Amino acid sequence: MTTQQLIEQIRLKKSFLCIGLDVDLTKIPSHLLETEDPIFEFNKAIIDATHDLCVSYKPNTAFYEAYGLKGWQSLEKTINYINEKYPEIFTIADAKRGDIGNTSTMYAKAFLEDLNFDSVTVAPYMGKDSVEPFLAFENKHTIMLALTSNEGAFDFQTLETNGQELYKTVLETSKNWKNGQNLMYVVGATKAEYFTQIRKIVPNSFLLVPGVGAQGGSLAEVCKYGMNENVGLLINSSRGIIYASNGLDFAEKAREEALKLQVEMQEIMNN
Amino acid sequence: MTTQQLIEQIRLKKSFLCIGLDVDLTKIPSHLLETEDPIFEFNKAIIDATHDLCVSYKPNTAFYEAYGLKGWQSLEKTINYINEKYPEIFTIADAKRGDIGNTSTMYAKAFLEDLNFDSVTVAPYMGKDSVEPFLAFENKHTIMLALTSNEGAFDFQTLETNGQELYKTVLETSKNWKNGQNLMYVVGATKAEYFTQIRKIVPNSFLLVPGVGAQGGSLAEVCKYGMNENVGLLINSSRGIIYASNGLDFAEKAREEALKLQVEMQEIMNN
Repeated sequence: MTTQQLIEQIRLKKSFLCIGLDVDLTKIPSHLLETEDPIFEFNKAIIDATHDLCVSYKPNTAFYEAYGLKGWQSLEKTINYINEKYPEIFTIADAKRGDIGNTSTMYAKAFLEDLNFDSVTVAPYMGKDSVEPFLAFENKHTIMLALTSNEGAFDFQTLETNGQELYKTVLETSKNWKNGQNLMYVVGATKAEYFTQIRKIVPNSFLLVPGVGAQGGSLAEVCKYGMNENVGLLINSSRGIIYASNGLDFAEKAREEALKLQVEMQEIMNN
Repeated sequence: MTTQQLIEQIRLKKSFLCIGLDVDLTKIPSHLLETEDPIFEFNKAIIDATHDLCVSYKPNTAFYEAYGLKGWQSLEKTINYINEKYPEIFTIADAKRGDIGNTSTMYAKAFLEDLNFDSVTVAPYMGKDSVEPFLAFENKHTIMLALTSNEGAFDFQTLETNGQELYKTVLETSKNWKNGQNLMYVVGATKAEYFTQIRKIVPNSFLLVPGVGAQGGSLAEVCKYGMNENVGLLINSSRGIIYASNGLDFAEKAREEALKLQVEMQEIMNN
């Protein structure tokens, strides 16, 4: 999917919501546990109930790898289901990968080619040659960690390096990498005041924003400081939507939560 | 496996060699491609031919994920084979993971509990709460990226932060994390001169050292500056050993290459 197509979807749906498919078998409705592939059945129901309210789904690979072979199979089935039934959706493999060049190429192929996700998240610590293999894929996107939403973000990301915080250097440096136009960035919603400065460095890039809802960030605040003329934001919510209920009505309740966010987004976009 | 058991194995085998099982189907002997699980068959032959010369095997997960479900199955079979047949081997899942707390817990369970690796590699960018879930596992080890062997290491890892390079701050800070005694660090062999300073910060920690061989680092140099009284090094070689030949004699040739390194290590340990 091209960036332009993503922007069109956002305008059409009046939504820049991304739903995180972080499926934990201990949290899903018990009646699904009797099915052959509970994770996929859960995802399928959530997707069918919410696809018109969001522009993106983001399975976090950890939650699939935790179930070994069966988990990997559920991930494959989930991405195939989205790609076949809802090809207008922007898909994100939240994998936070990064390794030396030939190894990053293997990861890039796994997620962007074989599984055919539109994008994958990567970690910046190993630098340019660990990320460029991901950037080489046409009409695919690489979403690099900049400023994350967890407490540990303050351990290294905000350290002063050459007169500015590390995450700013990460943003600035990466812009100049080969195919840097294929970069988006992860910026946590718990730090809305940082968005003003981030937008000075990457005015046009899409920012994937976790931390709204369960992690405590405010949508209005993030939009106030982080939005650009193409919206430029993908706001992720995982637990707040997918675990809204663990009864038979889980998909319906998930839709209700997604709708609340979509309505809030529509209002923000109309202003 | 405890650190003490690893040290005993090193003394017994006169080796601190780690063999990287980074299996690429385009590089393995063609006769294996006719078997049901070429990756596992390749690993099994390499392991049987080299297990007495090394103390550790390190499959890089990228090379398995690149083959989807089948790849994950090969990884499972490989780690099970090592754990059953050669339980004295220290196993490393080279995964370079790291995410917010609840997600890191899922990765930690996947690699340290379900697959039952002795250790897993992680990235430091997201800080303390992204790594501590891995450290919580008893008699398991978390190998954190400090200074890597690729060119991109100079993008961020060597930036000045508060008067010292970032990788040194990473080493220093992480020592104080909960269960920090379960940490080891990745330090690239291409930068032997850095080991003196690294040893001032982490005198007792084990260092996993990639970059000997194919990536150009020198074993003698690394040992000169990086060894401590318990050796404290795991020297990794992947391509130099496993792709020594792509004929019928691949395992035999891999053994020859591993033996060269083991002999060199034995000489260094004897001095």
